[in-house]
Amino acid sequence: MKILAVNAGSSTLKFKAFEMPEEKILVSGTFDRIGISGGHYTIKINGEKIEKEMDLKDHTVAFEALMNELLELHVVEDFSEISGVGHRVVQGADHYDKSVVITNDVLKDIASLSNLAPLHNPAAVKGIEAAQAIIPNATHIAVFDTSFHQTMPKENYLYALPMEWYHKYQVRRYGAHGTSHKYVSEFMAKKLGRDDLKLIICHIGSGASISAIKNGKCLNTSMGFTPNAGLIMGTRCGDIDATILLYIMQRTGLTPEELNTILNKQSGVLALSEEFSDMRDIYDHVKLGEEKSKLAQDMFVKRIVDYIAQYYFELEGCDGIVFTAGVGENGALERRRILEKLSFLGVKVDSSVNESIAGYHDIHEGCITTNDSTIKAYVVPTDEEVMIARDTYQNI
Amino acid sequence: MKILAVNAGSSTLKFKAFEMPEEKILVSGTFDRIGISGGHYTIKINGEKIEKEMDLKDHTVAFEALMNELLELHVVEDFSEISGVGHRVVQGADHYDKSVVITNDVLKDIASLSNLAPLHNPAAVKGIEAAQAIIPNATHIAVFDTSFHQTMPKENYLYALPMEWYHKYQVRRYGAHGTSHKYVSEFMAKKLGRDDLKLIICHIGSGASISAIKNGKCLNTSMGFTPNAGLIMGTRCGDIDATILLYIMQRTGLTPEELNTILNKQSGVLALSEEFSDMRDIYDHVKLGEEKSKLAQDMFVKRIVDYIAQYYFELEGCDGIVFTAGVGENGALERRRILEKLSFLGVKVDSSVNESIAGYHDIHEGCITTNDSTIKAYVVPTDEEVMIARDTYQNI
Repeated sequence: MKILAVNAGSSTLKFKAFEMPEEKILVSGTFDRIGISGGHYTIKINGEKIEKEMDLKDHTVAFEALMNELLELHVVEDFSEISGVGHRVVQGADHYDKSVVITNDVLKDIASLSNLAPLHNPAAVKGIEAAQAIIPNATHIAVFDTSFHQTMPKENYLYALPMEWYHKYQVRRYGAHGTSHKYVSEFMAKKLGRDDLKLIICHIGSGASISAIKNGKCLNTSMGFTPNAGLIMGTRCGDIDATILLYIMQRTGLTPEELNTILNKQSGVLALSEEFSDMRDIYDHVKLGEEKSKLAQDMFVKRIVDYIAQYYFELEGCDGIVFTAGVGENGALERRRILEKLSFLGVKVDSSVNESIAGYHDIHEGCITTNDSTIKAYVVPTDEEVMIARDTYQNI
Repeated sequence: MKILAVNAGSSTLKFKAFEMPEEKILVSGTFDRIGISGGHYTIKINGEKIEKEMDLKDHTVAFEALMNELLELHVVEDFSEISGVGHRVVQGADHYDKSVVITNDVLKDIASLSNLAPLHNPAAVKGIEAAQAIIPNATHIAVFDTSFHQTMPKENYLYALPMEWYHKYQVRRYGAHGTSHKYVSEFMAKKLGRDDLKLIICHIGSGASISAIKNGKCLNTSMGFTPNAGLIMGTRCGDIDATILLYIMQRTGLTPEELNTILNKQSGVLALSEEFSDMRDIYDHVKLGEEKSKLAQDMFVKRIVDYIAQYYFELEGCDGIVFTAGVGENGALERRRILEKLSFLGVKVDSSVNESIAGYHDIHEGCITTNDSTIKAYVVPTDEEVMIARDTYQNI
């Protein structure tokens, strides 16, 4: 059975086609600059890369081009061979605690949640509508970034803010990266052969979040009402004193919209280093003795340790700290620095394994602590697309 | 030598007079409703309480009344007997890492920092000016809430926000309750006979903050740019996703000023319980099975544990967790609930000692964990006024 995993952004459409349940990747690719000039796309198949320029007026045009490429590349001989399409949706609020078949009501509901994800949900709606128009007979499934976090208890998802903001405006912690945290959680359960694990999963990419997992369920997560909260990220500030915004508005006259852009696009590691948002650049400049990059790396590492500490206490110990996503999978130095701050607990990094899982050029996984380390740490490459394909397959 | 410790709020003036260096309390009191109708004051001396109504036009009138009472009560026979006046100042920014003699320049500087503490610094200036006018020959000392926290390293006081906000608008973590944290830190060093302690000091009152102390110096603290950040407090939200404010402004049209009031006066335990801001009321209603009060207590306790966790990791273990201020000194239940969440580390509460230090009616101190507890916990009654008097005495 052929299944397509689709991730539609405001001007992008990423996809991966799988043969299920074998989870064999048939083809993958990205359509870029949809709705703006300079549209182009890249498709990877059988180790080859196809790049084309094409005006992409809207998501429907992009999806049509995608399907035509699948025909031309003989991934399918007819559109009807695609049995299911799994659509990534950033914000499902507390309406969805699992992936669901997209009915008209679900589609309306996703659109209605755009207040909570103004950049992402409208794009997902466009992607879904385009796909439904072109392959109406496939089962379309919505896979929410937030649904895995719906098991959080009330004391972890509520804020100590007026309850009216929760009831009337849906202000609560939702978390994000749920598909990744779920994938890694299931991977670890299989790897260790246990369902009763206490895990601290560190999804550290340009966006980053940490989750506390107990018995395969999310107990807590560092992102909040929006993906701005928690860790210091590439361009996002993470946790700050919120009243800073009120002070800055009074001092500068900046609008809420302008502040939103600053907090999400001009803060984090970029603001601290005053130059780089990518931890690889930070790494290179720390080696050159650049002080601002050192500060950015120190604070980036420290905030991660702050959350590991909270979740270690909340879980009352843990069976594993797991690193995933860009920096998590490839940043051997960052992992070592994080784990060294836990050495007082008896955590010991296996340097040779840790350094062999790195470099952004090869995918590996494994345990990066020594046999006598009191807490084990692991690297697991995340795979959100295969998780979307699995959820889609299970819902058909 | 007679020294007066003064704490001027926008409409209040609290004071305590000491014989130094004996630290003997001579008299204490509070002037209330300064600048508004219904002015009155209370003075305690030799176990007696004097209450009077008096129109208090401004801080000068209140300070004059205070000095006249000191004469009438024969605390002094002449104003010149007051050798020093220590003034509490909430915000000293990074200009002051210790208490200082108040020169004209210092007074101007305190006024210039009003941007960072719009309610508090102008009141302190009024209190200082009133005291200087009436007893000009005394040495006036400014004791800052922020100065004890000035030893925090850069990675703990900076935010991952545009550096311009730090350089141009002084946005950084300052902390608060510094005088209390310093007092408790010095008390513990004396009690345990060691200067090299690693302590987690929990100042838990209606305002609340936790500090990580290493070798008598502040390493980190939970309050941030303002006293709104960190823990969930009586009416303050503590840490939230800051972008919530931008969303709420867009949805409701509330102004920054209105939001500031909501975050500081209508959030925290009050918002969660939808009724009470005082942990004693919460305690009573939890006993009655009231669910919202239970939620408020759960979240209040949990946030404290989150910070203990962070600082336990940052300090790489600790020699003691110390509770102080209203709830810290008297809330046996809250202390027990906090410490029970650390039982996985081998922390064991001594219930009998813990429960004997409680009740808001008597002042005690002591170790509230068993001999075999892996981490010791203590209760220490804070005394900000004596700390102000000591700093003043040392600066004369």
